Amino acid sequence: MEIEKYLKGKKEQIDDFMNGYFSRPLKPAPLKSSIIYSLTAGGKRIRPVLCLASYEACGGLNSKDIIPYACALEFIHTYSLIHDDLPSMDNDDLRRGKPTNHKVFGEAVAILAGDALLTEAFYLLSSNPKSGAGISQESILRIISEAAYAAGACGMVGGQAQDILSENMEPDEGTLSFIHHKKTGALITVSVRMGGILADCQPDKLGSLSAYAENIGLGFQIIDDILDIEGDSQVIGKTAGSDEKKKKMTYPGLYGLENSKRKAEDVLRSAVESLKQFDEKADPLRAIAIYLLNRKN
Amino acid sequence: MEIEKYLKGKKEQIDDFMNGYFSRPLKPAPLKSSIIYSLTAGGKRIRPVLCLASYEACGGLNSKDIIPYACALEFIHTYSLIHDDLPSMDNDDLRRGKPTNHKVFGEAVAILAGDALLTEAFYLLSSNPKSGAGISQESILRIISEAAYAAGACGMVGGQAQDILSENMEPDEGTLSFIHHKKTGALITVSVRMGGILADCQPDKLGSLSAYAENIGLGFQIIDDILDIEGDSQVIGKTAGSDEKKKKMTYPGLYGLENSKRKAEDVLRSAVESLKQFDEKADPLRAIAIYLLNRKN
Repeated sequence: MEIEKYLKGKKEQIDDFMNGYFSRPLKPAPLKSSIIYSLTAGGKRIRPVLCLASYEACGGLNSKDIIPYACALEFIHTYSLIHDDLPSMDNDDLRRGKPTNHKVFGEAVAILAGDALLTEAFYLLSSNPKSGAGISQESILRIISEAAYAAGACGMVGGQAQDILSENMEPDEGTLSFIHHKKTGALITVSVRMGGILADCQPDKLGSLSAYAENIGLGFQIIDDILDIEGDSQVIGKTAGSDEKKKKMTYPGLYGLENSKRKAEDVLRSAVESLKQFDEKADPLRAIAIYLLNRKN
Repeated sequence: MEIEKYLKGKKEQIDDFMNGYFSRPLKPAPLKSSIIYSLTAGGKRIRPVLCLASYEACGGLNSKDIIPYACALEFIHTYSLIHDDLPSMDNDDLRRGKPTNHKVFGEAVAILAGDALLTEAFYLLSSNPKSGAGISQESILRIISEAAYAAGACGMVGGQAQDILSENMEPDEGTLSFIHHKKTGALITVSVRMGGILADCQPDKLGSLSAYAENIGLGFQIIDDILDIEGDSQVIGKTAGSDEKKKKMTYPGLYGLENSKRKAEDVLRSAVESLKQFDEKADPLRAIAIYLLNRKN
């Protein structure tokens, strides 16, 4: 299948929704500008696309119906990038080839833009006017609960805290696995599960989707760590080598570069295998796994 | 009625729930400590108490049933205090008589503790095991949506952004009203409305509750501004005079101290009048309005 075309089509639908969403009046102006700046900085929209692809894989007919839910995932992801880049966190000046949010709008507005995006995600999840269209209130409450758990102290926030606290520390397997699972894995997993839950898929299929998601989450992070070493700053849109400079705990740092590449291939192959009970409607999910393995940014 | 005893009883129930909630395992340890530090720093729990009192006013039988929802409001409030105190925001060293969160745990962990509390609030709202006990899923989705709206860009975050951006600016009525409505008013209003919605109260009664809440929200903020001028740092638990030092836009700054005191009395009287269609079950709400007018911290 033509995965690039598929990704482009979905990305356009997602971008259209987000552009419309933030075209409404919002004061004060710098807060609005700061939110829009990071949201339109050119992300690949992998999380919402995974949600839509998973919905289709489970027989969801019109994935446009769930675009608002999918976009909530991008809001959460974008908030996490803004806060991660702050001077007191990773202190990054560049993100996706552009100055980071706090470099443009100052720290106070950047923190608040992140806070706003996180909160707005839950507004979006709970206030979708399409919620009548075949999606039960029970499913919606379940995705809100799962998204909050994945993004919160037991998920992404906990992972980021451990990442920051582990700088300069001797790498160890347990800590690295904790960081990867929580910081990146949890939100990717809930993105995939959300599509399944909204399509009312059976528990065993949801289990397979979770296995798929955990594998691509880990693969995604390993590739990220590898690109930080081998990537071209121009292409990855941030300063290459920054993990080493900040003494971050990374996969190649613990297992070496070659082992990391092999591991990334292994987990992405496992991801595809996890989907064996799904028919051709899951082909986009399969192709996304391969796409993520080969990405250069 | 003995409002002090009422407040103390409710506060104990709220504190019990929150202490239990964060006694579960949570890693990394500094994140957990930071969350618990601010959550147990001695707040009055006004927002959850308002939610419980409003539930009772609307005929809710056992307000213990809705404690988890009420506590979500305290999580949101506590997160906002942690972020407001940050060096790039209000740069406060003291809060409730103790060093602020970032002074103890550092900026990175403080930001993440705030992020975690905000996210955890939505977990609590969507995952309450008591949701079967007579509270419809529709009501729960509605309170999630209202809480997110009140806390987000169109509410509290917008108000805080405007507050920060208005420092050193000539005070004007429109901007001050915007800040007060959004920064303090929105979350207080949703606290009161939440109790009404969970008790399934009629739209006209919900309208009266909103009027009550908007009045006490404004009164609360005016008293806050007055205490910053006239209060005792020991009693208010933060450095008195800090608004003037930071050139904050305040009610006394715009209208003078005597006018501000008169206005606070007016709005709190209006708050009580808003409840005229309610019977004696709304006495705690009435007494809270008077209590807030007379508070010294």
